Amino acid sequence: MNRTINVGLLGLGTVGSGTAKILLGQSGLLEQRTGTRIRLSKICDLDITTSRGFSIPTEILTNDVRSLLDDPDLDIFIELIGGIEPARTFLLEAIQKGKHVVTANKALLATHGHEIFSAAAEYGVEVGFEASVGGGIPVLKAVKEGLVANQFHTIMGIMNGTANYILTRMTDEAMAFQDVLAEAQSLGYAEADPTYDIEGIDTAHKLVIIATLAFGKLIDFSDVYIEGISRISPLDISFTKEFGYRIKLLAIARDTDSGLELRVHPTMIPSRHPLAQVDGAYNAFQLVGDSVGNVLLCGLGAGQMPTGSAVVADVVDIARNLVKGTTGRVQALGLPCDALVPLKKSPMDSLVGRYYFRFSAVNRPGVLARISGILGDLDISIASVVQKGHGEEPSVPIVMLTHRANEARVRQALKEIDALDVISGRTMVIRIEDLQTLKEGV
Amino acid sequence: MNRTINVGLLGLGTVGSGTAKILLGQSGLLEQRTGTRIRLSKICDLDITTSRGFSIPTEILTNDVRSLLDDPDLDIFIELIGGIEPARTFLLEAIQKGKHVVTANKALLATHGHEIFSAAAEYGVEVGFEASVGGGIPVLKAVKEGLVANQFHTIMGIMNGTANYILTRMTDEAMAFQDVLAEAQSLGYAEADPTYDIEGIDTAHKLVIIATLAFGKLIDFSDVYIEGISRISPLDISFTKEFGYRIKLLAIARDTDSGLELRVHPTMIPSRHPLAQVDGAYNAFQLVGDSVGNVLLCGLGAGQMPTGSAVVADVVDIARNLVKGTTGRVQALGLPCDALVPLKKSPMDSLVGRYYFRFSAVNRPGVLARISGILGDLDISIASVVQKGHGEEPSVPIVMLTHRANEARVRQALKEIDALDVISGRTMVIRIEDLQTLKEGV
Repeated sequence: MNRTINVGLLGLGTVGSGTAKILLGQSGLLEQRTGTRIRLSKICDLDITTSRGFSIPTEILTNDVRSLLDDPDLDIFIELIGGIEPARTFLLEAIQKGKHVVTANKALLATHGHEIFSAAAEYGVEVGFEASVGGGIPVLKAVKEGLVANQFHTIMGIMNGTANYILTRMTDEAMAFQDVLAEAQSLGYAEADPTYDIEGIDTAHKLVIIATLAFGKLIDFSDVYIEGISRISPLDISFTKEFGYRIKLLAIARDTDSGLELRVHPTMIPSRHPLAQVDGAYNAFQLVGDSVGNVLLCGLGAGQMPTGSAVVADVVDIARNLVKGTTGRVQALGLPCDALVPLKKSPMDSLVGRYYFRFSAVNRPGVLARISGILGDLDISIASVVQKGHGEEPSVPIVMLTHRANEARVRQALKEIDALDVISGRTMVIRIEDLQTLKEGV
Repeated sequence: MNRTINVGLLGLGTVGSGTAKILLGQSGLLEQRTGTRIRLSKICDLDITTSRGFSIPTEILTNDVRSLLDDPDLDIFIELIGGIEPARTFLLEAIQKGKHVVTANKALLATHGHEIFSAAAEYGVEVGFEASVGGGIPVLKAVKEGLVANQFHTIMGIMNGTANYILTRMTDEAMAFQDVLAEAQSLGYAEADPTYDIEGIDTAHKLVIIATLAFGKLIDFSDVYIEGISRISPLDISFTKEFGYRIKLLAIARDTDSGLELRVHPTMIPSRHPLAQVDGAYNAFQLVGDSVGNVLLCGLGAGQMPTGSAVVADVVDIARNLVKGTTGRVQALGLPCDALVPLKKSPMDSLVGRYYFRFSAVNRPGVLARISGILGDLDISIASVVQKGHGEEPSVPIVMLTHRANEARVRQALKEIDALDVISGRTMVIRIEDLQTLKEGV
C-alpha cells in the first residue's frame, strides 16, 4: 500500500515545534523506514504568526482546531497542548471520529487515562503516548514490547529533568535550593510556577502511567505517595556525599508481599550506582523483570527534539500499522483495558528501609541520649552518627543513618523527637535505597 | 482471531532452555498480552534425555529437526544452536517453507546476514534477532522503532559480557588477565576457547548487526577494525585509574566526514561516564541520534533468562502480527533490504583521538628525550607523563597520554620508538574516548 498518511498537530509549543521539525525535515527518512509517506497536513496553534525558528509551509497552519477534527482525511491527531482541558475534549472527539491519537500529556493520562484508553478501545483507534514518560527514551515500548516476556518486580527512575537538574547543581556547586531554582527559572529551565516539577507531581504522573503498563493494575494518581525536593538543604547534600550516596528524586513502583509500593520522594542512592551518575536534565529508568533482570534506560527526559523524537516514533508505529491495514496490534496499555486488575497498594506505613535523619539539635549535653533513646524504644537501630560543630553554635546538625526500619515507627519517633525541647527545627528525613551496583557474574 | 501460534525451538542449550522456560511457564501472561495462545509445540536437540532443571512435556521433545521443518502447522522456527552450519541451512529452509524465524545467532547474521534477510524478504517472512545483540536489552527494537525518527551519529557500547567481566575483575582485584581468565573458565563464565570473547570477534559481530540497522549500510565483518583485551596488564589498569579513566572493550560505529568508523578495541573512558560504571556481565549501548541526543541502554548481555527474554519478545512481535493477519510491518533491518547503501568506511589511519602509551623503557638517562623527540617530530603532543620506579629496576614503565593525534602518525611513531635500543618491549597503546558525562541542561 502506498497511500499517504495525514497527520494533524495541535500545539506548536516546545514539543510541537520539535515534532513538526522532524516530520517536515525527515520525511524522506521516515518514508524509507515506513514504506509510506507521512504528511504533516495541518498544524493548529493559537499563535500561528510568531516564527518558531524553522520553515513551515503557511498553508498547513491554522488556528482553528475544527479544521483538524473535522477533516475526514486526517489519519493521526497529535495533541501537544498539555493540561487537562481542552486537551481531553479534543482527544476524545478525535477518537470518536476514528482518528488515531498521539499525545505527550502525562497529566491528562495519569488522571483521565482510563477514559481515553477505553474510548480508543471502543472506537478501534490507537493511542500513542511514549512521549508522556521519559522524553526521548523509548521506555514505554520497552515495557510493552521489548520486555514483554517479563513480569516486573520494580520500575524505578529519575523522571523529571528539572528536579534532577536542580539536585545536580546543588550537589556540584554546593548551592542552596532556592538559588538554583531562581537560576533555572531565569535560564528558562524551570517554569515560573515550578510546583509540578519540584514537588514530585509530574514525576508521579509519569509513575502512574508506566506502572499501569508494567503491572497491569488500575492505578489512580492519589495512590502515589509524593514528596518533593524543596526541603533538601546543602547540608543534606554534603552529608549524603560523605556517606557515599547521592540524592535523586526517585519514582518507585515495587511489587512486594504487602502490595504495590508507589512512591515519589528524594532518595539517597549509592554514588557508584549508575542512576547516581544520571545528572542534569537526563532521566533514567531501572526496570527489573523476572527473566531479564535489571535493565537501565537513560536519556533526555524533556526538550524539543528528544520529546519530538518520541512523538514521531508513535506516529511511525501507527503508520506502520496503517500501511498493513491493521490497528490494535499492541494494546495501548500492553494488554486489554478491561484486563487491568484492581490495585492492592502497599501502605507507606508498612514500608521497611533505611533512613537518613538530620536533627537540628540544641547544643546541650544529653541530646544524643534522648534522641537515641526514642529511636531505640521504637526498634530503630542506628548504623552511623555524625555530629559536626565547633562547640559554640547554639544549634548543631546531628545526622544519623539507620539500619532497616519501619516507616510507621520512624514517623512516630520523629514526632516524639521533634517535640523535644532540645530540638530546634523539623527533622529532615531522606529514604535510602541501597541499590546494588550492576555487577553480577556472567 | 484466536488461533494458536505454533512455535518450534531448535537447540536446548543455555539460551534455548531459557526460552523454553519462559514459553512454557509464562503462557498465560503471553496470551493476555498478545491476545493469542503461543504454543511451544516442538523442541529439537541432539540431547533430549538430560534434564535441563525444569519440566518439559516429553511429547514435544525430538531429536529430528525434520519434524520441525516439515511441520506445516509450525508458524515460528527458533534457531538457537549457534555457529554457521548447520544453523544457516536450517534457517534458510525454514524461511523457504514460509516459516517466520527467530535467532540469537550473531556470528551467522554478521557474516551471512544479507543472505538470510534477502531470503526472508523474498518469502515474506519475519526474522527476529533481538537476542543476537545485547542479550536481554531491547536495543535493536530501540534502533528500528523507538528511535526511528533519528539519524544516528554514533552507536557505541560494551557488547561482550565475558570480556567486561574479565576487565572488571582485573580492575577491582588488581588481578592479571590470565588469572582472571582461568578463574572465569573454571566458573563456566568463559568458554574453553575464549578467543571470540576476549579478542573482540563476538563484539565485532554484534557491531556489524546493530550498525547495519542504525546506518542503513552494507557492512561486512571484515570492515571492522578489531583488537582484543588479552594484552591489557594490571599496570595499564592501575595507570588508567590514576588518570581518572576505566578500560572497557568498546565497539564504536561513528559517522564522520571521512566515512563510518567501525572499530572494536580496549578503550579508556572517563570513570564518571555511565558506561564506565557498567561492570561484570552487563552490556551497555550508547546511541546518539540527531533528535534524541544520547540514549543509554544497559542490561545483562548474556545468560539463559535475559537472552530468553529477548527471544520470546521476538516471538511475541511476530505473534502480534499473525493475530492481525499481517507480516513485514517493520522490516527486519528497519528499512527494505535493497535500500541498504554501500559502506563508505573511514580508514583507521585517518582516526584522530587521544592515546595512552605505556613504554617499557630501559632505565637509562635520555630515554624520555628520545621518545618525546620521535613523538614531537610526528606532531603527537603529550598531555601527561608518568614515570614510576625506584631507580634500580633495569626496565621502567613510562606512561604518556597524548593530546589529539592521528592514528597513522601514532603507528609510525611507535614503530620508530619500539625499534630504539632503550625500549625493551612492545609499547602498549590504548585509545581514549573522552566521552562527555550525561549532564546537559534542561
